[in-house]
Amino acid sequence: MNGDSVARWGIYEVSVNGRTDGNPFTDYTIEGVFTGEHETVRADGFYDGDGVYKVRFMPSYEGKYRYMVTGSYSVSPEPVSGEFEVLPAKEGNHGPVRVAGTYHFSYADGTPYYSLGTTCYVWELQEDVRIAETLESLSEAGFNKIRFCIFPKHYDYNFGEPRSYPYEGTPMDNSVLTEDNFWGYTKNPKENNQWDFTRFRPEHFRHIEHCIEELSRRGVEADLILWHPYDRWGFSKMSKAEDDVYLNYVIARFAAFHNVWWSLANEYDLLEKTTEDWERFGSILCSRDPYGHLRSIHNCIPFYDYTRPWVTHCSIQRQDIYKTAELTNEWRSKYKKPVVIDEMAYEGDIPHFWGNITAEEMLRRFWECAMRGGYPGHGETYDREDKVLWWSHGGKLRGESWKRMRFLHRILTETPGHGLTSDARFDYLGVMAVPEDEAERENYRIYYYSFMQPSSKVFHIDDTFDYEAEIIDTWNMTIEKAGVFRGKFKLHLPGRPYMAVRLRRVPE
Amino acid sequence: MNGDSVARWGIYEVSVNGRTDGNPFTDYTIEGVFTGEHETVRADGFYDGDGVYKVRFMPSYEGKYRYMVTGSYSVSPEPVSGEFEVLPAKEGNHGPVRVAGTYHFSYADGTPYYSLGTTCYVWELQEDVRIAETLESLSEAGFNKIRFCIFPKHYDYNFGEPRSYPYEGTPMDNSVLTEDNFWGYTKNPKENNQWDFTRFRPEHFRHIEHCIEELSRRGVEADLILWHPYDRWGFSKMSKAEDDVYLNYVIARFAAFHNVWWSLANEYDLLEKTTEDWERFGSILCSRDPYGHLRSIHNCIPFYDYTRPWVTHCSIQRQDIYKTAELTNEWRSKYKKPVVIDEMAYEGDIPHFWGNITAEEMLRRFWECAMRGGYPGHGETYDREDKVLWWSHGGKLRGESWKRMRFLHRILTETPGHGLTSDARFDYLGVMAVPEDEAERENYRIYYYSFMQPSSKVFHIDDTFDYEAEIIDTWNMTIEKAGVFRGKFKLHLPGRPYMAVRLRRVPE
Repeated sequence: MNGDSVARWGIYEVSVNGRTDGNPFTDYTIEGVFTGEHETVRADGFYDGDGVYKVRFMPSYEGKYRYMVTGSYSVSPEPVSGEFEVLPAKEGNHGPVRVAGTYHFSYADGTPYYSLGTTCYVWELQEDVRIAETLESLSEAGFNKIRFCIFPKHYDYNFGEPRSYPYEGTPMDNSVLTEDNFWGYTKNPKENNQWDFTRFRPEHFRHIEHCIEELSRRGVEADLILWHPYDRWGFSKMSKAEDDVYLNYVIARFAAFHNVWWSLANEYDLLEKTTEDWERFGSILCSRDPYGHLRSIHNCIPFYDYTRPWVTHCSIQRQDIYKTAELTNEWRSKYKKPVVIDEMAYEGDIPHFWGNITAEEMLRRFWECAMRGGYPGHGETYDREDKVLWWSHGGKLRGESWKRMRFLHRILTETPGHGLTSDARFDYLGVMAVPEDEAERENYRIYYYSFMQPSSKVFHIDDTFDYEAEIIDTWNMTIEKAGVFRGKFKLHLPGRPYMAVRLRRVPE
Repeated sequence: MNGDSVARWGIYEVSVNGRTDGNPFTDYTIEGVFTGEHETVRADGFYDGDGVYKVRFMPSYEGKYRYMVTGSYSVSPEPVSGEFEVLPAKEGNHGPVRVAGTYHFSYADGTPYYSLGTTCYVWELQEDVRIAETLESLSEAGFNKIRFCIFPKHYDYNFGEPRSYPYEGTPMDNSVLTEDNFWGYTKNPKENNQWDFTRFRPEHFRHIEHCIEELSRRGVEADLILWHPYDRWGFSKMSKAEDDVYLNYVIARFAAFHNVWWSLANEYDLLEKTTEDWERFGSILCSRDPYGHLRSIHNCIPFYDYTRPWVTHCSIQRQDIYKTAELTNEWRSKYKKPVVIDEMAYEGDIPHFWGNITAEEMLRRFWECAMRGGYPGHGETYDREDKVLWWSHGGKLRGESWKRMRFLHRILTETPGHGLTSDARFDYLGVMAVPEDEAERENYRIYYYSFMQPSSKVFHIDDTFDYEAEIIDTWNMTIEKAGVFRGKFKLHLPGRPYMAVRLRRVPE
């Protein structure tokens, strides 16, 4: 219990004792109904071990609430009930992120959310000192979303054991792993491991919750990857019934965290699941997550059908090693949803074809995506002596692109209205970013010149208004005031790549 | 007359006096038939002014030839005839370039021709000192093809008068041109100029012939652009009959030069001509050029249908500002002809969206194209105080990419057999170049890593043969021997962009 108050978009948790006979994870039900002036929310509870059951609730409004918890978890037929007060949100908690204006995101309180994410697949399953480093790195860089997995990961550079397992049982003996057979164990994992897929280890999930909270404190959304194929333990090859038990458990535990996003899978097309499976999971999320957190699914090669109604936004891995972020317009038009390009290749130097772009190219892809009204994702794969790679383990950032993300974020937050788009008439010439809000179109624009290096450009927007021109160096993070102009005018540029020009109409 | 001998693939010219009444350019015919042991060639002659008519012939074989010149050009009914000897080709003259092996080119003597071209649209219509500079620059860079126009050019940075005009008449008064009306004069040029499109000025063409010869001396192919839209004089808007007179005249004058290629147009889609016009021109070239010089046509946006039988090779301007040379495979598959990407944007710093890529990006595009078995084209648009831009005027090269072309050419000439292709299985991962000749496929390969910067790569070609590995820095032009390997092996790379690895099977 939280006592009698909780902050808006915080978690009110009802904790009760219940039956321990049989399998408390699957044999009994528990649910809560939470009622305030503006909402009534039904939420599933879950078994947290040691005879304790919990129901969590995230209130979306301030004011008085009452609740009632029922279910077969208790031998007593009497529901547990009570009242509590929802206080104003804590500073920095703007509520869950929602789709806003078709192509963009905002927090529940209406603040625009400009997603600049990163990927550290199993940062939270590393030792404490590394986790602390990751959190510090995230804060320093200013990333506001991180993708990571609930299940441990078996993949190049990451063949060790995780800090904990999600299930009761015994993992395979990893001393039998050699460089040559690493991948062999992904084929028949169920034969090599001994798990009870109906009995969770609550401490695995409690630890992840702690990490989600730490992210929340830093303004970082937790984009939770529910399934992935990099697996020697068999978590990617459970039965349909086991998958559903897992998904329901995860929803019951995590949905009340305001900063959770659901990513059904990383590289769904590498998993041995069918479209029916993914659709079933989508359907379960829609019916069991009372808060409608953002939902998507991420590809290796073919995109999932992002037009499916349960998909709230695209979560894209680039399909072409040369052209990626430049396709943002096309994907926006096709899917009519926010375009998040979570993987545009990694800044780094590993041999994998997706793992060795330069910092300049990573930053360029960020700007190409963001200026088109999409939301880019970062990642790093530098192979150093300690074999700690950000993409997998988190830790310290070693590259150069991350240092320039906060500057881009600042530019995005200065968009009039909410969100950028690019002017389609301009497509053939490069990127001209304009506000999504049509009423703001003539007030603001950014020309982004990518790898091109013009030494001058001529502009002609309007003969009747003044525009303030700024020359933006996206790499060196400088904004140089270039003057106020009307009609047709020419700007001299430094003849370097990665430059942009911003024009803002001067108020009358 | 050339006396009684000429070198193979040189020009044997028969010069005769003839009628000067009426219009000698259009009223009379002249043709020659040249017969040796292995060929009989019929060639049109032309009026060269001052009562002189000429017929030119390029012999493809050594040995004795005889000729007979006939036509209405003379009041005498007697043909002019004679004999001459064809001697071995002069050093460096390998004959005209032909398509070889579907996707590649070779000279008539069988020497592979690896085209690395450049564009200087009207270099030959500049003053002598600039022409000399251009020729020197071409030699220094090692380009072996140059695209240029027969008609003068009216376009940004090039609004001056050419050194000569192709027709008798009077050009518009260019003192009326201002920055604001430059383009206006391209709309109704026939009203502003006074030309007789049936009377050529032979000195215009004689000068171009001199330039073609100078190119020949330097091993450079002359890719002649017959029509283009950048015109204030009306040469792009002649009647069909006038166009045909022009084309026949050009063929009669230029076809005997071994190093001539025909490019029907630059940016054909900006001209007010129809597909029927281009097809008619293609047909005229096929029937009137006795040597079958290479023929193509170059786009602004939509490609011409390169599958047309008269088109010998693709002559492409990139359609996408981000992805260009990487599409070489696709175009090879689609057109089943050599893919020449004559314009992949320009190294430079002018405002035009096609005119400001970096030297690194230009070189990268060259390698991407060449490693896929295509033939890239260079160009430079640096705007300096003297307003001399290589792309238009020639002159001195100011960039950095040109310095690295000869190195690429050397690598290409080391291909076993003739020409590279890329392994389609590898497409998703980048470029693995292999010899076009299937018998050589396992003997030689080049992995090109483009903007990626792997610090190592693992290779496994074959367990039974040794391969010598070389690490190629395409920017710094170094080739480092990395050892001889068999089976699976790992190479350490410098973790910089623009690297390649070449593996060559060691002879038993």
